[in-house]
Amino acid sequence: MHLALHPVPASSDGPAHQAPAPDPFDPIAAAHDLAARLATTAVERDRLGGHAARERQWIRASGLLALSVPREYGGLGASWKTIADVVRIVARADSALAHLLGFHHLQIAGIRLAGNARQQRRLLFETIEHDVFWGDALNPLDKRLVARPTAGGYVLDGAKGFASGSVGSDWLTVCAWDPLAHGSLVAVLPTQRDGVAVHADWNAFGLRQADSGTVTFTNVLLTEDDVLQPAARAATPQATLRAQVAQLILTNVYVGLAEGALGAARGYLRREAQPWFASSLDVAAATDDPYVQHRFGQFQVLVRPAQVLADGAAAELDDAFARGAHLTGRERGEVALAVAEAKVVAHKAAIEIGSQLFELTGAPSTSVHHGFDRYWRDARVHTLHDPVDYKLRDIGRHALDGTLPEPTAYA
Amino acid sequence: MHLALHPVPASSDGPAHQAPAPDPFDPIAAAHDLAARLATTAVERDRLGGHAARERQWIRASGLLALSVPREYGGLGASWKTIADVVRIVARADSALAHLLGFHHLQIAGIRLAGNARQQRRLLFETIEHDVFWGDALNPLDKRLVARPTAGGYVLDGAKGFASGSVGSDWLTVCAWDPLAHGSLVAVLPTQRDGVAVHADWNAFGLRQADSGTVTFTNVLLTEDDVLQPAARAATPQATLRAQVAQLILTNVYVGLAEGALGAARGYLRREAQPWFASSLDVAAATDDPYVQHRFGQFQVLVRPAQVLADGAAAELDDAFARGAHLTGRERGEVALAVAEAKVVAHKAAIEIGSQLFELTGAPSTSVHHGFDRYWRDARVHTLHDPVDYKLRDIGRHALDGTLPEPTAYA
Amino acid sequence: MHLALHPVPASSDGPAHQAPAPDPFDPIAAAHDLAARLATTAVERDRLGGHAARERQWIRASGLLALSVPREYGGLGASWKTIADVVRIVARADSALAHLLGFHHLQIAGIRLAGNARQQRRLLFETIEHDVFWGDALNPLDKRLVARPTAGGYVLDGAKGFASGSVGSDWLTVCAWDPLAHGSLVAVLPTQRDGVAVHADWNAFGLRQADSGTVTFTNVLLTEDDVLQPAARAATPQATLRAQVAQLILTNVYVGLAEGALGAARGYLRREAQPWFASSLDVAAATDDPYVQHRFGQFQVLVRPAQVLADGAAAELDDAFARGAHLTGRERGEVALAVAEAKVVAHKAAIEIGSQLFELTGAPSTSVHHGFDRYWRDARVHTLHDPVDYKLRDIGRHALDGTLPEPTAYA
Amino acid sequence: MHLALHPVPASSDGPAHQAPAPDPFDPIAAAHDLAARLATTAVERDRLGGHAARERQWIRASGLLALSVPREYGGLGASWKTIADVVRIVARADSALAHLLGFHHLQIAGIRLAGNARQQRRLLFETIEHDVFWGDALNPLDKRLVARPTAGGYVLDGAKGFASGSVGSDWLTVCAWDPLAHGSLVAVLPTQRDGVAVHADWNAFGLRQADSGTVTFTNVLLTEDDVLQPAARAATPQATLRAQVAQLILTNVYVGLAEGALGAARGYLRREAQPWFASSLDVAAATDDPYVQHRFGQFQVLVRPAQVLADGAAAELDDAFARGAHLTGRERGEVALAVAEAKVVAHKAAIEIGSQLFELTGAPSTSVHHGFDRYWRDARVHTLHDPVDYKLRDIGRHALDGTLPEPTAYA
Repeated sequence: MHLALHPVPASSDGPAHQAPAPDPFDPIAAAHDLAARLATTAVERDRLGGHAARERQWIRASGLLALSVPREYGGLGASWKTIADVVRIVARADSALAHLLGFHHLQIAGIRLAGNARQQRRLLFETIEHDVFWGDALNPLDKRLVARPTAGGYVLDGAKGFASGSVGSDWLTVCAWDPLAHGSLVAVLPTQRDGVAVHADWNAFGLRQADSGTVTFTNVLLTEDDVLQPAARAATPQATLRAQVAQLILTNVYVGLAEGALGAARGYLRREAQPWFASSLDVAAATDDPYVQHRFGQFQVLVRPAQVLADGAAAELDDAFARGAHLTGRERGEVALAVAEAKVVAHKAAIEIGSQLFELTGAPSTSVHHGFDRYWRDARVHTLHDPVDYKLRDIGRHALDGTLPEPTAYA
Repeated sequence: MHLALHPVPASSDGPAHQAPAPDPFDPIAAAHDLAARLATTAVERDRLGGHAARERQWIRASGLLALSVPREYGGLGASWKTIADVVRIVARADSALAHLLGFHHLQIAGIRLAGNARQQRRLLFETIEHDVFWGDALNPLDKRLVARPTAGGYVLDGAKGFASGSVGSDWLTVCAWDPLAHGSLVAVLPTQRDGVAVHADWNAFGLRQADSGTVTFTNVLLTEDDVLQPAARAATPQATLRAQVAQLILTNVYVGLAEGALGAARGYLRREAQPWFASSLDVAAATDDPYVQHRFGQFQVLVRPAQVLADGAAAELDDAFARGAHLTGRERGEVALAVAEAKVVAHKAAIEIGSQLFELTGAPSTSVHHGFDRYWRDARVHTLHDPVDYKLRDIGRHALDGTLPEPTAYA
Repeated sequence: MHLALHPVPASSDGPAHQAPAPDPFDPIAAAHDLAARLATTAVERDRLGGHAARERQWIRASGLLALSVPREYGGLGASWKTIADVVRIVARADSALAHLLGFHHLQIAGIRLAGNARQQRRLLFETIEHDVFWGDALNPLDKRLVARPTAGGYVLDGAKGFASGSVGSDWLTVCAWDPLAHGSLVAVLPTQRDGVAVHADWNAFGLRQADSGTVTFTNVLLTEDDVLQPAARAATPQATLRAQVAQLILTNVYVGLAEGALGAARGYLRREAQPWFASSLDVAAATDDPYVQHRFGQFQVLVRPAQVLADGAAAELDDAFARGAHLTGRERGEVALAVAEAKVVAHKAAIEIGSQLFELTGAPSTSVHHGFDRYWRDARVHTLHDPVDYKLRDIGRHALDGTLPEPTAYA
Repeated sequence: MHLALHPVPASSDGPAHQAPAPDPFDPIAAAHDLAARLATTAVERDRLGGHAARERQWIRASGLLALSVPREYGGLGASWKTIADVVRIVARADSALAHLLGFHHLQIAGIRLAGNARQQRRLLFETIEHDVFWGDALNPLDKRLVARPTAGGYVLDGAKGFASGSVGSDWLTVCAWDPLAHGSLVAVLPTQRDGVAVHADWNAFGLRQADSGTVTFTNVLLTEDDVLQPAARAATPQATLRAQVAQLILTNVYVGLAEGALGAARGYLRREAQPWFASSLDVAAATDDPYVQHRFGQFQVLVRPAQVLADGAAAELDDAFARGAHLTGRERGEVALAVAEAKVVAHKAAIEIGSQLFELTGAPSTSVHHGFDRYWRDARVHTLHDPVDYKLRDIGRHALDGTLPEPTAYA
């Protein structure tokens, strides 16, 4: 699928009666359209869990999979700021599918950050040409997947859990332990490659359609050209920036969840809630209640900082991408801190608003048909990607003595 | 079912070789047994929702339905302190069924507090004789149920939502609007009475098996003897104590939920959790992690005050019951404040521990098979019985100027 | 005093061997210089309280009094963003004097927003020409000051408390009740005018040198030209923007206090604190302690949102100033909300860090010679300018139903 | 001074017309009397700091120094529950003097727990006979004081900081490093002993009259009979209970501070505060404001748990004292946990109420003449005795795996 952020200029040798230039693609509008569509079934799909095959097609059709692919490969060349906005907008309606969309772009980021020129060309053209939906199998805490070197590549055997968006994916980024190099390599391969089995066993109580279960590998061949980052090669600051893309996407899912919960509470309070019988006489509507207003004000001052810090962190990430191979470890560390601060603040906003909104909306709002508990459940599951206490430690340690977070898959 | 809290003394004309006195009934032990049994299927039943017919039979068989019935009617004559402990123990494993058990005793409290001598005798003997499981249909905020006076009684028409434990109940307490007296009456009737239809439409996201849906009434006859509290009769302080029984039961369900969540987190951390890879070297187990220990300490200082205040409030309620018809409005108000303080503190403990425990147990603990989210979901639904902000207002107003909470069904 | 933000271009007809252009005035550097100077005696002056005559001279000498005066009147024409930064930097070292400096600019804002062209010219030239330090006597909650209309003006009688920076001021903005118009007027007058008596009776436990006590007025004459806003004239949205300047200055004092407290804690932890004896073996320094790092991270995620929201609110205020008389009520309301959000967040950061820093620095850090308690005391006094709960109400009410805060002196 | 908790029975050989039995001494009434007297000058003495010689005489005259001395030595034999209540009542008015009174009893506890029979007899009779006011010089984190063994005892040289109540004391408990035994000994000596110099250099920003500065020792002789706990002798569980007495006294000072702050806020809100102009129409008085009531409710649910847990911990400490030398390490550990929980909860109540009360009472309440900031300052200084984060760690670790806190001077 080919889309353009700006009008494609008509070729000079075109027909005399020139067709009007097509409207440029507007990712924000497309995100709103997609979110509106997902919202119509989000409550029911949350209940069902499982794989959202039809809705993943909607994402494909939205054009939003091309956002992070540079224009030279036929993509939209969008900034991380734009991608973050898109993820956030979609997450307001459906955080599981926002996660899939966001992590698709994470895999593309991985290719851009660690792939060589040939790999980038091959994989990014392929992504655009075949509307590839990327997933991964690279949970670094799951050490079961082993890559044994062979002539011209490796053979993969083992398994990975928490494989984000693996069900329904076309290509996967994988991470595997190379016992010879005594380190982990990162590679890519089509999900259909022989020996790869994707298990639809994701079954957390939130983020129900995140397709993030187990992938098993049996005698799977990897060529050297599949390998983005061999185990023996030290990761550059640029390559380790991948973790910051991941963290920024998570952050924006949390912001979107907080915004979604706020919006749901607002709508319910305006349309359905009754004032509490023991409130004072000038409380004619639930939205007049002084305690409802006060708590809503507290929600607002939870979500606003999350929005603003996430915006700032996205801008810093864009700057870091622009630095390319010149990115230093210090610059990388500063991006990591900006993203970490945004993530901690967004985490809190999503959890607190998702949990506390009910103090305002009351008992009738707990009916399953409203589905308002999914904000807390989704936020609860997703915010556990890595422990907030260690994020706070990293932030505090830096503020105390300038220590930058050690580059890992989580920081 | 007849049970004794203490050994029944052998009759003096008994046989020479006296049989050993039967063990006295130990409600705490019975509660632990029941909880252990309920725990085996609690996660699955939470998923299914609906009516727990078999488990309600276990409650019947446990003997715990007789706790609040005075000994003179064949009951166990237990204190509210004991009943509160029982509810709390059961709620650790299954808060929906703990709610049913607790609210059964609430209905008996209503008879004891507002019923005349004949009603008490009739209904309480009946309760023991037929192992009656009580429910209610008296949500005072739902004004749809009307009681029209007729010769010798009333005719009920209309509906009540949030009818606690109505599905599967044998008898119900009802509350209905009497348009002639311009007030509400409280009455009792067998659930099977003609014209009563119990709808299994409870479908909140928590407290899944609370059987607390809608009851509709079509031309249902009430005799005068069914009426505990006519609309025209002002409620005595003693009669309004019923609300404090309700609030104390809720409080103990919250305490049990907080304890249950704490216990689940402890078990998981000791048996399944891994330390975070970025923690320091002397963290060999998840339970060694300084942040895990610190948060667990915070949980502990959330739950301890809830336990202790709930215990104190139960003792005050017992004292107030002992005062009987001599109970003054001031004494009643002081019980209300003690219960309100305990409820607010227990509310916070249940919500916070139910939500925060995952910061310690991490992503793998969100698998549906653990069912750990039910602590938050159950607490979230149940703590909305009446708004915590108005409880805090009542407590604060009293602390400021001595105003006692106005006696209502909620305070 | 005349200063330039940018180099004054050399006149074209200058001498051949041109003198080097003078360095442009850098308000940020000047603020840092001033802060450094104030810091040397801040702890002692906090202890003494009273009037900081010498330090006010330092402020005069710093050139920073000219910041908000437009260039056409000889001032520096700085943006509110720059003024906010200056206030924040000074507040890190001395929040009382930062308040004086900020509220000086508030009085100038009042002239710019409500004064007619002649008043602006007269007063702003005067301000630059004589290095005027402005104060006020306009606490709108103190209704004791009355302005009785006379021929050609008014006579003032009565008193005002909480008169910001009145001691040591050259000119004052005053607000007085006009009984004929049944409203309040706003006017300016030299502090030395006959009948004005400034009382050095400010004696709060924080912000010790804020010079904000009582001013009494005995038969004080006001000409019509002294009146910026007659009681009978409805305030325009532009004129009511004054309250937002006030709130933004307060916000930046709070941010500066939070930053100052953070800096003090950091310095102490790095240079003086000992690790707790019961911490683990790999804690060699207080800054290695996992709990110290974690809490410091929490401080950081309190202060960062405050900084970023305050920056954004300043930019919105600059935009609103640029709109001049075209500013609509809605635009004014949106500025008010942005400032309110920043203020609430900064309030919390200043109070929490000012109070909690001691959990990290420990008992020896409470010695009076460190003066670390002044962060909490200053923040505590200053954040009471208007109640945070009503700010949260305004923010929540708007988020719920779009109601803009009613324009008052506080919102 | 001799006092009796209960009437002294008249001797059987008394005169025929018997004098009425003297009223028994009521420690609670005496504490209220003392508190009322201290309250009259507490604000001014807080401002002055230094040594409260006159007020210490009032404490002596109150009879409350005899509370913890067993009746067999002429004391009042009061329970720790009573002593805790007394400390709490006095702390409402003056936490520094409450601390002196409490720590006097701590020294007596040290004699009772670690002294041999002869030491107990000698020192406790002496305490009653001469109205001894005890202080200490045993901060275990200050290692400067050394006890070198000599014939028949030791020679002390060095210094101790944070010497509680040392100024104005009659006797001191000291702790010193014995380099031969490679451990610390605990001993007692009269403050007037040759070579002891008490420095009135306590100058923290709170607890201003705690007399807890530095004591220096120059060639001070200790006899063996002065030594309660030689360095070479392992402390029994009973002896280590001393730390729990200390922690319980601190806890009750915090509870008293929270209660004092609550009472001050209540009084001010009822007598002096105005409702905020922007509140709703039915707010006629500050105490009617919904936000004031709500926050006051939150204060109440902070202070109530602190009171109740402190009461429970005192009862556990009394039980542990009753066990005497039979006290096991486990029993000691359980007391430590009960006290730790109470202390953490009381710490939070004192700090939060002391800081937040101003959100209700507003700017005019910050005038120095009210002295309301002393609640936060006193609580802030006193709660740093040992870090709350390590208390939470101990509590959490025990809740997780049953580890009892290691007996130290702080746990």
